[in-house]
Amino acid sequence: MINFKIDHQIGNARCGTLKLKNGIVETPTFMTIGTYGAVKSLSNVEILDSGAQIILCNAFHLMLRPGIDVISKNHGLHKFMNWDKPILTDSGGYQVFSLSKISKIKKDGVEFQSPINGDNIFLTPQRSIETQIILGSDIMMSFDDCTPYPSSRDDTLISMERSLYWSELSKQANDTNIPMFGIVQGGMFMDLRELSLKSLKEYSFDGYAIGGLSVGESPKQRNEIVQYLTPQLPNDKPRYLMGVGKPLDIAYAVNNGVDMFDCVIPTRNARNGHLFTNKGIIRIRNNKYITDTNPIEQFCKCFTCKNYSKSYIRHLDRCNDILAARLMTIHNVYFYQEFMRKIRVAIAERRLGKYIEELENIYLSQGEQNGNY
Amino acid sequence: MINFKIDHQIGNARCGTLKLKNGIVETPTFMTIGTYGAVKSLSNVEILDSGAQIILCNAFHLMLRPGIDVISKNHGLHKFMNWDKPILTDSGGYQVFSLSKISKIKKDGVEFQSPINGDNIFLTPQRSIETQIILGSDIMMSFDDCTPYPSSRDDTLISMERSLYWSELSKQANDTNIPMFGIVQGGMFMDLRELSLKSLKEYSFDGYAIGGLSVGESPKQRNEIVQYLTPQLPNDKPRYLMGVGKPLDIAYAVNNGVDMFDCVIPTRNARNGHLFTNKGIIRIRNNKYITDTNPIEQFCKCFTCKNYSKSYIRHLDRCNDILAARLMTIHNVYFYQEFMRKIRVAIAERRLGKYIEELENIYLSQGEQNGNY
Repeated sequence: MINFKIDHQIGNARCGTLKLKNGIVETPTFMTIGTYGAVKSLSNVEILDSGAQIILCNAFHLMLRPGIDVISKNHGLHKFMNWDKPILTDSGGYQVFSLSKISKIKKDGVEFQSPINGDNIFLTPQRSIETQIILGSDIMMSFDDCTPYPSSRDDTLISMERSLYWSELSKQANDTNIPMFGIVQGGMFMDLRELSLKSLKEYSFDGYAIGGLSVGESPKQRNEIVQYLTPQLPNDKPRYLMGVGKPLDIAYAVNNGVDMFDCVIPTRNARNGHLFTNKGIIRIRNNKYITDTNPIEQFCKCFTCKNYSKSYIRHLDRCNDILAARLMTIHNVYFYQEFMRKIRVAIAERRLGKYIEELENIYLSQGEQNGNY
Repeated sequence: MINFKIDHQIGNARCGTLKLKNGIVETPTFMTIGTYGAVKSLSNVEILDSGAQIILCNAFHLMLRPGIDVISKNHGLHKFMNWDKPILTDSGGYQVFSLSKISKIKKDGVEFQSPINGDNIFLTPQRSIETQIILGSDIMMSFDDCTPYPSSRDDTLISMERSLYWSELSKQANDTNIPMFGIVQGGMFMDLRELSLKSLKEYSFDGYAIGGLSVGESPKQRNEIVQYLTPQLPNDKPRYLMGVGKPLDIAYAVNNGVDMFDCVIPTRNARNGHLFTNKGIIRIRNNKYITDTNPIEQFCKCFTCKNYSKSYIRHLDRCNDILAARLMTIHNVYFYQEFMRKIRVAIAERRLGKYIEELENIYLSQGEQNGNY
């Protein structure tokens, strides 16, 4: 059983408290991505300083490199990466389909070629769950089949039903009390999404995720699915929108009742000199920052803004000093945690709608919805 | 006038205290290299945590990128990189000759093509000193002509005399009270080295450096020059051996009376997985570290050793996560500062000879003198 309490609610939006083995998570929360057991460029202390209460790591990647035996010898992922707060582990379903060459999809699992060394690997729900248990996960994800985009209704149905079967096997494979989330699939077909959710509810998972988005569909399609589906997810369980997203997308989803998010945007964009501020996006490679002696954001309390000017960061970026990528990652990761904190406060103070309007003024003028970043 | 006091002396070796505008430096000291105004991958706090009391930055690089005007607008290099302890600036002489295509060596300076954008640049002693002053240097180096290796006696003489003339111009160009060191040249010819030193003494510099080494000569040649020349450098001024080196080379040079060092080895080697410990060199890419859950060095107090296992660092290195380069840099830079501290203590306790024997036992068995690293 998952320990999840809703503290405030306005409309569908809610603030909650999620108690996990390794700590408490205030929701809505954003999980910074530490694919290989590290948030690229950041130390454990810097992840903590960002305000992160939970991070996401990938069973798929860690299974291939360094391998589960290595992490097991290091007494689990928490000890390996020296992070003692919660970790949600992704099951590998999405990665098998997006990162590797599939050899064969079978009833009980999928055979693929390792993108690291070409080895043939057979990944099953059981093996995914076993891996997540050895990693020492605080929240496991069920192993699913990620439907490609676009797909016909027939193909989507087959894929969705396969996901359901694998979800059942995942659930059965969990002989621990680690919470597990089920993943709603069904592609772009609302009735298939509802069918998927209905069946998943029967397995009574500890939380429910919306998967199979951010695969190429338009923001409009995505928002429609989130808007329609989220309120139907069990109210007393955490709701997790996978792979989303940009600040405004997160705010809209929170407004529909989502509690948890993950996305590569803050970290990946940082490494490309793309920085988030409360006044919008800054692209540090722009010439206008050459002599800008102000921090990325005035009054920001992140290490980067307390110590360095845009001028210095831009200089390091041009010199390809990895300190640049790191300082920018520190800022973006901190920004996202601060952003989630502001969302939680806005819900508690019953002014989320107003806060979303402010966000629209910032981001829509910068063309976020046109896919500019 | 430079404020330099010798606190202990055994034979030629000495411990001293060097008071500079931005802080006190205990000698013998090792200056970690921050070429572009950053020790690659490290923040200001991490440089400080290594125990560093002074770092080295390059006027040549900073003049080309980001340019002196940018650093000036940031109120000097200390503010730009947020480092408030001493900085020694190299003059650019060595870099002009090693990193760029020389167009013409003239009496008053050298014309070269910028390795960044191909611009023709005329660098003179006056311009080098002016640059170092704007950077806000704590110790400036005179602008010199770096003799290639090998060079004939005649060519070496011409180059050495040019260096002398440029040293004089450098000295004249310093209208501040920032200390300036002269650089002894003369290639592999002992009598030219002595001639160079004799003339430099007449300009009464604030310190004396041995330049033009680590250019391709054998360790034997280098050690002979250091051994012969160092005791002849003024006793009451700091003595700086440029570009050296490995721990054992440093220890030998200290034994001959050198007070200051700089070298890329701790930082560059770190990025290649080559780590220093008190038991010798560790190459983290070696398979034997895959499951090694111990830190790089037991009882080491650096951030890396207090937080992570060799197994984790090796994993990050294989994943090309820049956190790996950073964690290894933190360790090596800390190791070098600890090493210099041990040398100072060994001098103060009159047991440097014994300490050097211990170092020989560690490093000679690993083939350091065969150029293995």
